[in-house]
This record gives sequence, C-alpha cells and structure tokens, in this order.
Amino acid sequence: MKIAIITIGSELLNGSRLDTNSKWIAQKVLPWNGEIVSKISIPDTDQDIINTLNYYISQSLDMIICTGGLGPTHDDITAKTLYDYFKDTPIFDDDYWYILKGEFKKRGYDISNLNKSQAYRPSIGKIIPNTIGTARGLHYKKKNTHVIVLPGVPAEMKLMMKTTVLPMIGDLSKTSTSFKMYRTTGIPESHLYEKLLPLINKYSEVDIAFLPSFLGVDIRISSKINKDFDKINNQLFLIIEDYYYADNEIELEEVVAMLLTDTNLSIATAESCTGGLIGDRLTNVSGVSNIYKGGVIAYSNQMKINLLNVKESTISQYGAVSEQTAKEMAIGVQKKFLSDIGISTTGIAGPTGGTNKKPIGLVYIGFHYKKITKVYKFNFRLDRKSNKMITSQAALNIIRKHLL
Amino acid sequence: MKIAIITIGSELLNGSRLDTNSKWIAQKVLPWNGEIVSKISIPDTDQDIINTLNYYISQSLDMIICTGGLGPTHDDITAKTLYDYFKDTPIFDDDYWYILKGEFKKRGYDISNLNKSQAYRPSIGKIIPNTIGTARGLHYKKKNTHVIVLPGVPAEMKLMMKTTVLPMIGDLSKTSTSFKMYRTTGIPESHLYEKLLPLINKYSEVDIAFLPSFLGVDIRISSKINKDFDKINNQLFLIIEDYYYADNEIELEEVVAMLLTDTNLSIATAESCTGGLIGDRLTNVSGVSNIYKGGVIAYSNQMKINLLNVKESTISQYGAVSEQTAKEMAIGVQKKFLSDIGISTTGIAGPTGGTNKKPIGLVYIGFHYKKITKVYKFNFRLDRKSNKMITSQAALNIIRKHLL
Repeated sequence: MKIAIITIGSELLNGSRLDTNSKWIAQKVLPWNGEIVSKISIPDTDQDIINTLNYYISQSLDMIICTGGLGPTHDDITAKTLYDYFKDTPIFDDDYWYILKGEFKKRGYDISNLNKSQAYRPSIGKIIPNTIGTARGLHYKKKNTHVIVLPGVPAEMKLMMKTTVLPMIGDLSKTSTSFKMYRTTGIPESHLYEKLLPLINKYSEVDIAFLPSFLGVDIRISSKINKDFDKINNQLFLIIEDYYYADNEIELEEVVAMLLTDTNLSIATAESCTGGLIGDRLTNVSGVSNIYKGGVIAYSNQMKINLLNVKESTISQYGAVSEQTAKEMAIGVQKKFLSDIGISTTGIAGPTGGTNKKPIGLVYIGFHYKKITKVYKFNFRLDRKSNKMITSQAALNIIRKHLL
Repeated sequence: MKIAIITIGSELLNGSRLDTNSKWIAQKVLPWNGEIVSKISIPDTDQDIINTLNYYISQSLDMIICTGGLGPTHDDITAKTLYDYFKDTPIFDDDYWYILKGEFKKRGYDISNLNKSQAYRPSIGKIIPNTIGTARGLHYKKKNTHVIVLPGVPAEMKLMMKTTVLPMIGDLSKTSTSFKMYRTTGIPESHLYEKLLPLINKYSEVDIAFLPSFLGVDIRISSKINKDFDKINNQLFLIIEDYYYADNEIELEEVVAMLLTDTNLSIATAESCTGGLIGDRLTNVSGVSNIYKGGVIAYSNQMKINLLNVKESTISQYGAVSEQTAKEMAIGVQKKFLSDIGISTTGIAGPTGGTNKKPIGLVYIGFHYKKITKVYKFNFRLDRKSNKMITSQAALNIIRKHLL
C-alpha cells in the first residue's frame, strides 16, 4: 500500500533538526507491505498543511502519516488545522484533562493552561492513544486515504506506530511481503556483496539490500513471492554466519547480555578510550544487573594502576595504549569485580594524541576468562566519537564470539 | 528568498538512507536570507520529478534545489528528465569527455561507456561545475524560479553549493537574516513559553521558535530586521538565564568540560543507574583527560561497598536507591579518584524494579566538592534509555550550576 509522510515543523526546515522519524517509519512499514512513495517537510502553517494534504489526497494514496505540531504552544497548529480540514468540531475531554493534571503533578509540575489545547478530542475522527506523552494522535479518512496524525517526539511517535498504526496497515494490506533482516559486523559491505553475488544473481525475484553503517552492515531480504523464501534465507545465512549477530533491530549488547545470561557468566568492564560507553550499552539492556557487575572508567594512568592493578612498569615500558596494558586491565577488572569475564579497552580516540607509532584510531581490546587471556589490536582511523563507538562494537563482538 | 529542496532517489524512501543533505543546505542558506519553505523526497521516476517541479513552480518560489540521480547508471534519470522538462537539447561535450577520461586514467581505471551520459551539457540551461566528481550540476530558470540540480553525494553537493549556489543566493537576495540559538535544560517547554510570552507579543517582527526534546528546549530567535535584535537577545537572555547552558550546537558535556578546565577542577563519576553514560558523554569531549579522572560503574551493591566505601548498613537500611547511598557514592568516588568533585547517580531505570515507594524513574544524584555535599531527587518516569539519558543530563547540569 502507498503511503506518504508529512513532517510538520519549521525546525525540520531551518536546519535545527535532522528528520530521523521518516527513515524509521519507512523501515517499519516495509514488512507490512507499506511503501513510502513520497515524504515532505513543511512549516507549521495551516495553509501549508492544507495544500500538502490536498496534493497527496489527489494522488489517491492509501495513507498519509503526518507527524509534529501537536504540542501545547502557539506554533502547534496541526490538530486545529486537521479539525478544520475535516470539518470536525473538537470536544473538550474532561476525563483526559484530569489524567493530564495528575501526570504533571506526579512529575512535580503544575500543569499549564496551555496544555488544555491537548485535551480536546475529535467528534468525527478517532483518537490514537499516547501512553507516554500528552499529545494524542488523530485518525481521519478522506476518499480512500487514511490520514494519521502523530506527535513528532520520536519515542511517542514510535510507540503509537507500533501499538496502533502498524497493526492498522497490516489489516489494510492485501498482500504481504516476506521480509527478514540480518545484522552483521566485522566485514565491509563490498566483501559481503561479493560473497552474496551468486545468490543475488540466482534469485532475481528476491530483493537483497545492503544497509551499511560504520558499525556493520545490515542485510535486508524481501520478496513478494513466498516460494523459496526460506530456502534462500538458509543459503544466505550459511554465507554470512561468521559475521551475523542478530535479526531485525536487535542490538549487539542485547545479544551479549542474552548469551551471558544463558551461560550464567558475569562480566566487568575496564574502559579507557571508550570512557564508559561499553557499560552504558550493556546497561541499556533491562535485567542486566544479573550478569553485569560494573566497571572502572580508568581514564588516567594512576587509576589504571590503583584500581586495576596495572603495573607501573608496564605503563612506563609499553605505554597506556599497548597490548600489555590492555591485558593487565582485563585481568585486573575481572579480579576486582569478582566477575567471570573481564574486558578492557585502551586506545587513542583522537583528534589529538596520535603519533607515528601510535596513530589516532589505534585500539587494544583485552579479554580475560579463566585461562584465556587475549588482546586484539585495531586501527579504526575515524573521528573521536566514531572511534569510541566502533571500539565498543568490537569489544562486544569479541565477548559474543567467545561465548558462542 | 523562498527555496524548496527536492531529493531524488528510492534509497531515501525505503529506510536505507538518512537525508542529511537537506539539513546542511538549510543551515547554509540561512545567513544569505535563504529560507527552506518545503523539502520533499521522491523516487527516481520522471513522472515524480515532473509532478514535483510543477507543484513547486506553481508556488512561485525563488529557487528549487534538486539533489540526486546524476550518476551514470540506468536509474539516474534526473538530467534527462530536466532536459525534457525544459525542452532542452543536450549536446555531447567532447572537451569534458576528454577531461573525464583523463581523470579516470589518473585513478587507474578505464572509463566506462556508461559515463558518457555525464558528458552531455545543456543548450538552454547552464552547467554548475563539479571539481571533485564526474556529475556536473544544472541551472535552469522557469518564470521567476531558479531550478538548480546537484549530485546527491554529500561532499560534491556541499562543494558545489559553496562555490556556485550560495554566492548566487547571496546575489539574488536583497536582505539578510540575524539569528541565534539558545539551549536550555531543566524547564518544560510550556513554562518557558509562558515566561517568554511578553517578549513574543512585544516583538512580532522577530521569530522565536521552541525546539523541545526530552533533554531540554532549544530556543531559536531570528529576524529579518537587524534593528533591536541585540536588545531583544539581551532581554531574552535575562529571562532564560537560569536554564540556559549554551549557544547553537554545543552540548552540555562540552560546557561542563570547559567550566572544569576554566576553574582547574577535576571530577570523577560514580554511576549506578546511568551505567557509564556520564563518563561516555564527558569523554566525547576532546582533551577531557586533564579534568576527568575516570569513574566507577557500580552496578552491584557489593561494588558500591568495595570500591566506593558505601557503608553496608546504609544500603541495608535505606536501600541502594536512596539519598544516603547517593551521598556516600559521591564522597567515595571523589576520595578514590583523588579528584576535586565527585558526582553519583543511583536510580531505577526500569522497565522492571519499580515499587510503590520507589517507582521507575526515581533517581538520586549526589554531588560532592570540599564542604558541599548535596543530593538531588528526581522522578523521570520515562523508558529505560530515556531515564538514563535524562539522568546524565541532570547530573551534568548540576555540575554546571555548581561551577558557575
């Protein structure tokens, strides 16, 4: 089914905000056979909204998803404009206003009278519930086009898509697309492409797409013909098995947490160049306290020595960014935290601090578990944040591979 | 002057690629008084391109900037479609073909015959030079609307904007725009709006926009009239001063690192619920090793006791998520890392672990510096990742306020 996205708000046009919502929506509607045929960003004026709705409705699309402009301030005019557009008379919703007041109170704020505008509900249209924010969504229909209105706040938009809009798209679609995504890390896109080329040539009815980022390549396989879909997936999996870590949107830290839980092993982190990022990623996973004991962010040499028992002579002889230091950090943190596994990072994140012998992007990752102590060396050569991020990815992947 | 952007290519609609070009263009045209009034992403079909050009040209904009679809392969149809649209007859450009062949040779490739499509030049329209890629741009005019066509490759698009299109916009526009952005945290959008309402009403010629996220609200002020701009900025600043932390794109962690450097004070972090996120954010700032000593991610109670000297009796009596534990963690980490300041977080990130007395989102942040020891209590009630993120934001803001 054909879908257009309208994102409403000047912040998307004046260079203040990057629109990440549209990409997310495009990915999510795909398995339900939804196809984004166009997306447009417009300012929050009623005339722009009306013109754009008319333009898209004239193209007889199946659905238009609008986001943004549902907040409480003067430039949030989406709801009012839609009420007028659909000749609807909104009703003040006393029950919802009561709930809103309670929510604000719980958070320690007095509610502003401005928020009253968010307590109206349509008479003709339907409400789309929002369980984590104040702005509820709207659902109208004109000719054969469903018009959906959601807040622009990503967390709220995503939850409302998942609970209401995606199931609606599923109901409305007549055909389905078979679809699967494989996440890989540790191999460049071009090598992956070469490995999969025979498969791509053999099954032309199947679409194999590569979605590369600097952390890895996601492979998306989709087909409108169900025949052979499992067979192709099995063949593809055998080719990418060494690099594959998860399906769909599952993050590497979730896979690692699951493997640690399954094997009943605990871990501790000794982070220098990643500065806490591995701990942060692991603790993004709920329930991780059973397997993650914690860690030390050993940003200074003295703390590597004091807290992780790295030998002073090791640092003076080999430097803080060295195989030897990484090794002692991994052993030290495992002992200090009484965990099963210790993992460590030390490297030069940049943009300063690089030398000819130790360039920016040089990273050592130490792994220690019982009698296994290994250090892995990398040369990432990216910017500071990306060097940190890819180091955390490599460290998590090292843990994953050891646990398999 | 009013400008629309058309980005051409299926990869922008199927969730494979994030459109970062548009945000960059929007930022760059602003000082030249360029205003992006709409931006649209469409698939690479001639009908979509023609419909969209007609739609925007009917709105009598000053300029339309199209990007993408100028490559050498079969799905690159932008140039051909534009030639047809403007009834232009392209001419094969022998000189350019000769240059292209030479460029390929220099890089060690044979040129493909496919690239011949890139060696045509318009008869009616003008060429926009591309000094770092093969695809040159196009410039047409219809009624009063300039139509610009650029490659989608960010580096090429940016260079061609800088060398040709931005100067053109400068020549065409008669006025310039003053603008400034203020970042705030710790106050909801509606309260900020109420505080600024008198200013908004008084200076209607100035545009004051609110860009909220769950971490804070950015306020953007812009005006086409230079008169009074400084005066309004001064007045606005006085109103928001308590919540203001930076201008433009500067992050809170950069402000904190700067203040620590300026005051010559060092800091250490004791993180429970944030799991390393504060350390991660601080170490995103280059040169932070002078003021950030490191930290402990004390995810288990035992480690709070062993590494941060939290008393066992404190945890058993008040719990790990308590004012008392936060306090002892902040003191403990400052002592352990021999830093000037200690900051701590302990809380319930969710989605599990909440109780009636200690609900999800309950967070204590401890701050310790010399004789000052303070604990701040929050109720965030968001999802796990957002609770972690907003806790790190609150902690950094606490440090910032103490340093002022």
